[in-house]
Amino acid sequence: MVSLTLQKVFSVIDRDLNSSIKLLKDFVAQPSVCATGEGVRDMAHMLGEVLKELGFNVSYHETPTKAPIIHAVLKGKGEKTLMFYNHYDVQPPDPLSEWESPPFEPVVRDGKLFGRGVNDNKGNIVARIAALKAVTEVFGESPLTVRFVIEGDEECSSRGFSGFIDECREELRADGCIWESGYVDKDGRLQMYAGMKGILYVELVARGAERDLHSSMGTIIPNPAWRLVWALSTIKGPDEKVLIEGFYDDVADPAPEDIRALEEVPFDEEFLKDLTGVKEFTKKATGLQLKIEHFFKPTATIDGLVSGYIGEGSKTVLPSRAVAKLDFRLVPNQDPHDIFEKLRQHLARHGFSDIEVKLLGAEHPGKSPINSEIAEVAAKAAERVYEKPPVLLPMTAGSGPFYHVANKLGVPTISAGIGYYDSKAHAPNENIRIEDFRKGIKHMAAVICMFAESRVS
Amino acid sequence: MVSLTLQKVFSVIDRDLNSSIKLLKDFVAQPSVCATGEGVRDMAHMLGEVLKELGFNVSYHETPTKAPIIHAVLKGKGEKTLMFYNHYDVQPPDPLSEWESPPFEPVVRDGKLFGRGVNDNKGNIVARIAALKAVTEVFGESPLTVRFVIEGDEECSSRGFSGFIDECREELRADGCIWESGYVDKDGRLQMYAGMKGILYVELVARGAERDLHSSMGTIIPNPAWRLVWALSTIKGPDEKVLIEGFYDDVADPAPEDIRALEEVPFDEEFLKDLTGVKEFTKKATGLQLKIEHFFKPTATIDGLVSGYIGEGSKTVLPSRAVAKLDFRLVPNQDPHDIFEKLRQHLARHGFSDIEVKLLGAEHPGKSPINSEIAEVAAKAAERVYEKPPVLLPMTAGSGPFYHVANKLGVPTISAGIGYYDSKAHAPNENIRIEDFRKGIKHMAAVICMFAESRVS
Repeated sequence: MVSLTLQKVFSVIDRDLNSSIKLLKDFVAQPSVCATGEGVRDMAHMLGEVLKELGFNVSYHETPTKAPIIHAVLKGKGEKTLMFYNHYDVQPPDPLSEWESPPFEPVVRDGKLFGRGVNDNKGNIVARIAALKAVTEVFGESPLTVRFVIEGDEECSSRGFSGFIDECREELRADGCIWESGYVDKDGRLQMYAGMKGILYVELVARGAERDLHSSMGTIIPNPAWRLVWALSTIKGPDEKVLIEGFYDDVADPAPEDIRALEEVPFDEEFLKDLTGVKEFTKKATGLQLKIEHFFKPTATIDGLVSGYIGEGSKTVLPSRAVAKLDFRLVPNQDPHDIFEKLRQHLARHGFSDIEVKLLGAEHPGKSPINSEIAEVAAKAAERVYEKPPVLLPMTAGSGPFYHVANKLGVPTISAGIGYYDSKAHAPNENIRIEDFRKGIKHMAAVICMFAESRVS
Repeated sequence: MVSLTLQKVFSVIDRDLNSSIKLLKDFVAQPSVCATGEGVRDMAHMLGEVLKELGFNVSYHETPTKAPIIHAVLKGKGEKTLMFYNHYDVQPPDPLSEWESPPFEPVVRDGKLFGRGVNDNKGNIVARIAALKAVTEVFGESPLTVRFVIEGDEECSSRGFSGFIDECREELRADGCIWESGYVDKDGRLQMYAGMKGILYVELVARGAERDLHSSMGTIIPNPAWRLVWALSTIKGPDEKVLIEGFYDDVADPAPEDIRALEEVPFDEEFLKDLTGVKEFTKKATGLQLKIEHFFKPTATIDGLVSGYIGEGSKTVLPSRAVAKLDFRLVPNQDPHDIFEKLRQHLARHGFSDIEVKLLGAEHPGKSPINSEIAEVAAKAAERVYEKPPVLLPMTAGSGPFYHVANKLGVPTISAGIGYYDSKAHAPNENIRIEDFRKGIKHMAAVICMFAESRVS
């Protein structure tokens, strides 16, 4: 019976595809960059109005950032509640010069939609809205209660999300949660994950003279760019080992079931090398070891470096300031605040207490069982829509506030979404394939229908 | 007799001071940034036209850069020839936000003229022109032949100047040369120097993936920012010692007469600390040792660093590229091309042959006797105008094509100019004091008159 009704739902989705694309374009055309705050409030308002029109009860929760968290509930038939976690903020679009079309002017080329946020994460918001519209049209009402939690600071380490979860814990009950995004791999299989790394994002600031000086003063005036280089070189060495004392203390080895799941995960090393232009992976890792490195090991990454003259040609300047941005991707059971303290102590111990360490973001690693009810329903629905079994990842290499939903609230969680292997999230020319968007909407519709009918375990 | 005539010349200089300031403002309002090429040709043309109006025979020598070298000769009475070396290019004005008034909109505030190039080096060009105009008005003609050599690439390591000197060696005869600039110290004494360091300016470029990636890929994809940090940390250590094999091989110890001259050089350490906001000099140097470090030791300075995200807040990006700009200030008898080769070999030896090393500028160190005829005349003239003995430096910490004039052409050379200790050359809010400008013009007029009358030794 589900099957026949689903066919009707899918027809409605096909019929309305162009208006779904239109809605996504409207969302993408509204910049919403959490790093600068640009447009986040306008975006939240635009999104809230769309949800209200669908009958949602929408509330905005203010946070310490400019971006409110949207909590929207649509009561449906029966007792079951499905949560959707998403975010309406996007990464900054730089470097602008590398975009083939302007990032906030979405455009379809060769069956793909280009623009900042088409994949991460506005396309997924629209897919879930479009799925719910189609299901509601066919069923007359939603077969379950739908709860949207949509924040506006995910790309800036979700400042304020933890506070929202603590404050609204009682209202946020759900039987399962579909996480923000997912990707179709090059074999056409949907990748879904049941855990996310944590993150610690810091800025190191070294200071020298009060202003930039002529570089001939490099004889006797301390140079903050050198101080920063020397400090950074104590944090990680050319063997890729993080040298902060105690950094690896709380790292849990992957469990046997995680290893078994990883063994099933396809990972085309040659394809990834071709895609990125890289000749060899770090530590020369390969096979299962490469997958363990990628999904279960913490990192220390320089995200940005800036000091002195950065234009074309030469300028002889002794910089007054040098800044590095670093992120540490953390795995169970590392704690971002503990790692932050260890980093500060490490720098002090190595003679760099003059370097300021700013905490820009912190997120715990989070993990949900790979065999929960929602995970099994979402996997079955994926197999039906994509006509191939999904790839189930026990963890992903990315970070997000997964911990708060999966571990703090205790809502079983699995990810799914409309991206593909070359969606260029966080990079210039971010894009989705229209056909993935269509399938992603159908997948969400199938999840709503099938989760409504499945027994609460 | 010189004395009485000089008084007349000085009166003319006072009378015309405002029109001299006007000419300088016109020059400063014309950007001429060699690093980008912006405005250099327009500046060369404007300057050439001013010299032609004064009766100079002006020729433009093309170089591999956009900026031609101006060679301008005004025949005078007698056999003697005085050369002026200057440059019409300026440093880039960034960081723009730190300027209190726009860099290319010169303005007088509190007896000071602000703008990019007012000191380095356009103010000195105008001072020499104004001096010559006044002398010519009083004498009816110039008492000696004046030869201007004004290049447009000094801030970019004078690319093309060496070729010009080689090509025009026969035409460039002179009995003495006044070098581009000089500064009044806080005691009101003119600082003059008889030598300059050389320079090697390089750019190091590390490359990773073909484009910026999501920083979660930091697990397995090489990060060029880390490669650059590790490579840089092999070039100089926290003890400030340059670690390039053979770097110090050709460094000449200062001669006894250089040490004697240095002992006479005032160097107010507390004042310099206050001015720069620095608590301690590198290597904790002080006294004569500090002066030797500053004037007679080579450096390795990071002038610029850039990689990945450099904006406000956080962006989780694995950079595809990391760039460092470095300059090495060289002392007799280091050779910039030899040091460049040693740097390349050093990086290869330490496993960093993947990092590209671009040569952006190279200049030999140069030195002239501190007791040449022109040096003695210029010192006497300074004592007369400034009413205090000048400070004679055997070397300066800065670099320039001094070598080509003083050593290749063999023209005895000494510097003099209109700046002061807080002129902020190469930095935001570059400025001169109007009273220094007035005295600098008078000093140049006195040099012209006194050098014309002194015997060729």
